[in-house]
Amino acid sequence: MRGKFIVIEGLEGAGKTTAHKVILQELEQAGIKEVVLTREPGGTPLAEKLRHLIKHETEEPVSDKAELLMLYAARVQLVENVIKPALAEGKWVLGDRHDMSSQAYQGGGRKLDRNLLNTLKESVLGTFEPDLTLYLDIDPVIGLERARGRGELDRIEQQSLDFFYRTRERYLELTQNNDKAIIINAEQSIEQVTADIQQAIRNWLK
Amino acid sequence: MRGKFIVIEGLEGAGKTTAHKVILQELEQAGIKEVVLTREPGGTPLAEKLRHLIKHETEEPVSDKAELLMLYAARVQLVENVIKPALAEGKWVLGDRHDMSSQAYQGGGRKLDRNLLNTLKESVLGTFEPDLTLYLDIDPVIGLERARGRGELDRIEQQSLDFFYRTRERYLELTQNNDKAIIINAEQSIEQVTADIQQAIRNWLK
Repeated sequence: MRGKFIVIEGLEGAGKTTAHKVILQELEQAGIKEVVLTREPGGTPLAEKLRHLIKHETEEPVSDKAELLMLYAARVQLVENVIKPALAEGKWVLGDRHDMSSQAYQGGGRKLDRNLLNTLKESVLGTFEPDLTLYLDIDPVIGLERARGRGELDRIEQQSLDFFYRTRERYLELTQNNDKAIIINAEQSIEQVTADIQQAIRNWLK
Repeated sequence: MRGKFIVIEGLEGAGKTTAHKVILQELEQAGIKEVVLTREPGGTPLAEKLRHLIKHETEEPVSDKAELLMLYAARVQLVENVIKPALAEGKWVLGDRHDMSSQAYQGGGRKLDRNLLNTLKESVLGTFEPDLTLYLDIDPVIGLERARGRGELDRIEQQSLDFFYRTRERYLELTQNNDKAIIINAEQSIEQVTADIQQAIRNWLK
């Protein structure tokens, strides 16, 4: 039987790492022990090299379109060489970000053209999509405050607050009324967020 | 006055390096002394890193789409950060390959979808295009023989002969009946090819 693909999405500081642990525990309790973990951009040798260029290029300004194209180049590699083969073998895949991040950050945040984004998505992914996306919703002011506590911010994390508000708005547009997405209120206490995620995953697994 | 953008295109072993020298000499004789030289993929710090990934990634198979997206990511950087600013300052630009290479190699050779190629071209370049493309036409058997004489072939140069025949076919489709392109018969002696290029550039400069 084909495995399932679950993706965690959200702004910096939304608590993706905690969500990751909680979901893995829930899957294990449900008897799903072999889970392939991915992160985007990244997850293959070439995609990790692209991740480094995307996040840490400092020798010249990176154009928004170049960033988008590198993200999709990394995504093709990951989807074709890792995610699809794993699902076909019956393994489950848990992704730290996937296509929705590009839609939200590059489409919403950077205001890149929807037609370009749609063509790239259609060409790279076709009809492939996650079985479930767990979106951790948080006000950027709160999320960035948490992220800053962790240390230095990378090139993308150093954007203006407006950028993150536009990103959040696109995330909400993509997850509200989407029956393959669950929105978690990530502004709550960590205990409450954990409980909400547990409940959401348990309901979904039924 | 805006500068002009001249591009040299052709298969491996077609004689692009020779053509490069001949064109520079002709431009100098015409009083155009400051010429910005570019190569694709490459020509900016980020684009050169992408060039290396495109040509020498060996840790995993590179999907044709990932290759195409990296080529266009490199192209955005070069066009926005180097070529357009140079032309705007009145400098001339001489390019070793440009967009037509992607159309020919990735479109013709790798048979990637024309709609994807057109969308990428439209998004990355808009209406921007070379003022002149000099296409060096050669049978791949002859060109590859010459290229092999130079030493090790890179990842793209190690394709099948069929790949290069499809690439040449697309090159001819793009340059025949194109009033901004000149086709040079690169199977002739180096003296004759040189003479043909000199004549073509002189006529074009008038």
